[in-house]
Amino acid sequence: MSEQLRTRIFDELESLVLIDPHTHINPHAAASTTLADIMGYHYYTELAHSAGLPREQIEEPGLDPKEKVGRLVTRLGELGNTIQVSWLIEMCREFFGFDDERITTDNWEALYDRAAEKMAAADWEEQVLSHSKLEGVFLTNDFDDPLEGFDTTRYIPCLRTDDLVFKLHEPSVRERLAKATGIEVGDAKTLREAIGKLFDHFVSKGAKACAISLPPHFWPEPSPLDSIHESMRATFEMMVCSPGKRREMYEEHYFEADDMTDEELAQEIDSHSNGFASKVIFWMIAEMCAEHNLPFDLMIGVNRGVYASGVYQGQDLYNRQTSLHQYAELFNAFPNVTFPISVLDHTANPELVSYAWIFPNVVTNGHWWYSNIPTFIETDTRSRLEAVPESKIIGYYSDMYKLEFALPKFRMYRRALAKVLAENFIIDRGWSEQRAIDLGKRVLRGNVESVFNVS
Amino acid sequence: MSEQLRTRIFDELESLVLIDPHTHINPHAAASTTLADIMGYHYYTELAHSAGLPREQIEEPGLDPKEKVGRLVTRLGELGNTIQVSWLIEMCREFFGFDDERITTDNWEALYDRAAEKMAAADWEEQVLSHSKLEGVFLTNDFDDPLEGFDTTRYIPCLRTDDLVFKLHEPSVRERLAKATGIEVGDAKTLREAIGKLFDHFVSKGAKACAISLPPHFWPEPSPLDSIHESMRATFEMMVCSPGKRREMYEEHYFEADDMTDEELAQEIDSHSNGFASKVIFWMIAEMCAEHNLPFDLMIGVNRGVYASGVYQGQDLYNRQTSLHQYAELFNAFPNVTFPISVLDHTANPELVSYAWIFPNVVTNGHWWYSNIPTFIETDTRSRLEAVPESKIIGYYSDMYKLEFALPKFRMYRRALAKVLAENFIIDRGWSEQRAIDLGKRVLRGNVESVFNVS
Amino acid sequence: MSEQLRTRIFDELESLVLIDPHTHINPHAAASTTLADIMGYHYYTELAHSAGLPREQIEEPGLDPKEKVGRLVTRLGELGNTIQVSWLIEMCREFFGFDDERITTDNWEALYDRAAEKMAAADWEEQVLSHSKLEGVFLTNDFDDPLEGFDTTRYIPCLRTDDLVFKLHEPSVRERLAKATGIEVGDAKTLREAIGKLFDHFVSKGAKACAISLPPHFWPEPSPLDSIHESMRATFEMMVCSPGKRREMYEEHYFEADDMTDEELAQEIDSHSNGFASKVIFWMIAEMCAEHNLPFDLMIGVNRGVYASGVYQGQDLYNRQTSLHQYAELFNAFPNVTFPISVLDHTANPELVSYAWIFPNVVTNGHWWYSNIPTFIETDTRSRLEAVPESKIIGYYSDMYKLEFALPKFRMYRRALAKVLAENFIIDRGWSEQRAIDLGKRVLRGNVESVFNVS
Repeated sequence: MSEQLRTRIFDELESLVLIDPHTHINPHAAASTTLADIMGYHYYTELAHSAGLPREQIEEPGLDPKEKVGRLVTRLGELGNTIQVSWLIEMCREFFGFDDERITTDNWEALYDRAAEKMAAADWEEQVLSHSKLEGVFLTNDFDDPLEGFDTTRYIPCLRTDDLVFKLHEPSVRERLAKATGIEVGDAKTLREAIGKLFDHFVSKGAKACAISLPPHFWPEPSPLDSIHESMRATFEMMVCSPGKRREMYEEHYFEADDMTDEELAQEIDSHSNGFASKVIFWMIAEMCAEHNLPFDLMIGVNRGVYASGVYQGQDLYNRQTSLHQYAELFNAFPNVTFPISVLDHTANPELVSYAWIFPNVVTNGHWWYSNIPTFIETDTRSRLEAVPESKIIGYYSDMYKLEFALPKFRMYRRALAKVLAENFIIDRGWSEQRAIDLGKRVLRGNVESVFNVS
Repeated sequence: MSEQLRTRIFDELESLVLIDPHTHINPHAAASTTLADIMGYHYYTELAHSAGLPREQIEEPGLDPKEKVGRLVTRLGELGNTIQVSWLIEMCREFFGFDDERITTDNWEALYDRAAEKMAAADWEEQVLSHSKLEGVFLTNDFDDPLEGFDTTRYIPCLRTDDLVFKLHEPSVRERLAKATGIEVGDAKTLREAIGKLFDHFVSKGAKACAISLPPHFWPEPSPLDSIHESMRATFEMMVCSPGKRREMYEEHYFEADDMTDEELAQEIDSHSNGFASKVIFWMIAEMCAEHNLPFDLMIGVNRGVYASGVYQGQDLYNRQTSLHQYAELFNAFPNVTFPISVLDHTANPELVSYAWIFPNVVTNGHWWYSNIPTFIETDTRSRLEAVPESKIIGYYSDMYKLEFALPKFRMYRRALAKVLAENFIIDRGWSEQRAIDLGKRVLRGNVESVFNVS
Repeated sequence: MSEQLRTRIFDELESLVLIDPHTHINPHAAASTTLADIMGYHYYTELAHSAGLPREQIEEPGLDPKEKVGRLVTRLGELGNTIQVSWLIEMCREFFGFDDERITTDNWEALYDRAAEKMAAADWEEQVLSHSKLEGVFLTNDFDDPLEGFDTTRYIPCLRTDDLVFKLHEPSVRERLAKATGIEVGDAKTLREAIGKLFDHFVSKGAKACAISLPPHFWPEPSPLDSIHESMRATFEMMVCSPGKRREMYEEHYFEADDMTDEELAQEIDSHSNGFASKVIFWMIAEMCAEHNLPFDLMIGVNRGVYASGVYQGQDLYNRQTSLHQYAELFNAFPNVTFPISVLDHTANPELVSYAWIFPNVVTNGHWWYSNIPTFIETDTRSRLEAVPESKIIGYYSDMYKLEFALPKFRMYRRALAKVLAENFIIDRGWSEQRAIDLGKRVLRGNVESVFNVS
């Protein structure tokens, strides 16, 4: 009975047209052109690498897309158990009429060719969106993205601020900022002006969120720039000013720097600032979110480059020794900013449930990356639905790089959601099916509209 | 089949008359008088606040109880998913004949009036106890509670020691201690005498436990007062002595204190003692538990006042970076004290299972606060039942402030327990139904009797 | 339906002949001779002690085996809920024809005698292996084990290195090393030579793994011996050299040591080295694993002697504040060493899943000790099967001290595995039964062969 019930709920949830609140889609090339666009997704390259395929074979310069797929297919036999490969099979079935149980060295070429043929259709992007019941897709835009040449009501801009917070000392980032805003940043005041311009630009183009990913030990604090000792202000200015000015200040305050390039000098100062400048800039961005009425998506817990020899985008991991307690002061300081929170580590979910239960401005947001497997999704979903106000739960986002992924990823989520609704609401708590379906639709779609002010 | 089995087990567990081993009941006003007593419980005020109801509307001075309920009801539509609201509906059904699916702006007034009518009965308290199959209720008493004017075999005293351990430097707490014991505390010796008097008083009044809630980073250590440097002893004395003596010592050892009030001076000294005095007093209380043969309930992991703008009792959260390893020395030092342990963070449960598995004096105790939702209760219950001696598992306590809550909270637990017994003992392990029911009854009632020496 | 499906899958998994990749079997006395060998396993002594049986009664010098069992039986009534006692009942049923539900003071003697009779058979060891479908058993050998007098293709050697890494400063350990290798260790170079000899010996005797258990806060780092200050090298030499030389160096560099025994001096130096020498030796052993092509089993997270008054082997616990992040540099530094990883704390499993998903040389390895209960095994197994390449999952090892334990422990695992395969692969993901069974067999047996290079 439970299985039939799950199926009925799932079918109802499947009928819903979605807005995907977080992706990495390039709006100028949203859909795939070959199977290599799909299988080149880091989930497949990193798993194939983890199963023994050398990085050099995966990332060989100038590698033909078909050859790349052929190489990855040799390892699929060791990955068939993973939920990620189940997405691949589901995409191939839904979009390319594939009907074998597995992709093997025997059947992949026909699949590749068939996929290429389908993807060559002029309206492939429309076909994918329509078949996936997707009408809106949030992007993740670099701060200097002109946001032009695409329909921003379909592909909704989101200001990604990692570079500003963690890399502004790098000369290239500073140059991009100057170019995007026309402002030569040299201190907190000019930095605030420049960031203000970015926000104005994004909001004018229909941006509906600001976002950032954060390392496990990041601990936001109010900017102390007005009260602290002069030397801290100087350090901050050295972080954000031009390379020339930085060198001048460094040599004035510290030592000769003749033996360092601009980049090395920037790294040197960053390593001594101990994250101080990042905290100041982060806080400034939270202030901008308040001023511009934008939700601030926090994606908490990633360590970058942990596996330095890993494939592209397959090098990051986490350290579970993190706590939302680190963000309590932030949540208190910005009662009017909504913080949709994603946690990388599944064991951080109970804290997220508790913080969203108490803080009006904390919203649970999807199931991020390493937490994005059914084992964790089911538990996390159930606990959120039992203890967080239903208006503050954003069920899912795909995090996809190519449009074809929305279908299998959202289906995985809808299956988990249907299971939780069937077993823990209808059976355990005696809810009617309709009530459970309504709750499911709210977390899948309704809350995306209300939290991000889209419709 | 599994669902019918669960129902049969649940029905058997429902037939049991209970003793609730931890509540915040006021024995002089144990039951509610209006629905505002129920909906004013912090679970509802904090969730309504989290869903957007301003604190000012909830905590308006002089607010009429009916008006308060009316305001809270406006947010129930966003909280209907939560398990806490399911308790509310269950109470209204069981006690007030409510039979709608939800409480809405349309039906709440009739419910309010009907509830007030029922609660006005002279024997309402008896009705609730009898309908809830409750014959004993542990209290949480302030250390200076006279424990008079109520039946201490029904409402069983428990000495709450948070104020002694964490607030003794506050002049008002010291005054309460002096008034309750007739002893002017000035050093470790007089403090021990005073606390000894409190224990004598509580035990003479039938107290069956001592209890405390502890912050995540608390780390008990043996009192070093006899061996350490004189300056530590002086610090300790400044923490516990009278405001006048404290000021005198402070000015003798440190600086002029003319510009500080007694309260400010107390805070100043506390902030410099770095928790040292709290550790000494905590250890002293553990010694008293040993001397008086009282179990010491430890409720581990709460940070107070994290959300400073939250509603009353809706400001506390936790930091998951805590470990029972911090308590190993305590458990070793007091082999004859039983420590019923509650953890606030669900992810601390595996450690609790392991520590109760090894230490004879560690007992698992219920599902506290943020862990008190079915998702977490089921997993925690199952793991405890699989690895902790069955004599050392206290299934549940309600933590209630008003009697009406025992019924829905214990039912939630009994449903979870019935599910675990049915699925993981009868189906997975081939147990007979009777054996599973016996185990369930032991953790629900039998162990409360044996651990706390009540019956 | 789900239950019948689980049974079918379980039966298929039961038909498989196994190699157990981690045990503590003594190959010269692999099977039990009385029930005291079984019930003397620390799981039963520590649980009986936890339930109130005094250690003095369990560990009384010269205690008769039968009397010991009789004493332990008095506490079984309080442990019948535990999964560990379910193993005991299952062993007694399978091996000794026991068919009561529980072992009690009334029936234990007959059981004891019947067991002794069966165990007295000349081929008891063969009977147990055959009935348990076990054809290979990894050992855990002290580094100075001669590895002689047994069939190393059945009982496969594994070099346990805890003593080398954490106790080399103890004179007795150093003596054992000198005796086993003929090398008087005095510095890094001679230590490397000695350890190299141990590896040569073990590999020549068919060893298939190196193993170590590690405390929660251990953080491996590359040996800095070549670059660091002379005083660090001197400290290292004091850790590894002879007691006489150590005393000489200590008195030359520091103080008179007349008042300390050799052991005390060793402890003194170890306590000041802050784990430095352990890190150096650990790294050296990882290098040896690379040179000798041996997998390095890391068992992460145990604190030794936490409950100092506990029974033998029932004193260790853990601190959940640990992270695999501490091992990232190790995994990067040794890409050609396979690290089968066990974590003691269930909440560390999500990190393990993620690290095995990314690092080619990280393999998930069984369910260790406090994590070895069905609640945790099911979740951990499911998450691994959803996200780690199937070639990198070693399903289970028994960790047993006596052969009889393999049967109930592997059955517990097979039940959990069958449940996950039935519910989460066949039902949730639509897999065929055969495909699920094949996956189960791979993690139960196939990967043991491929990871450890046995067959």
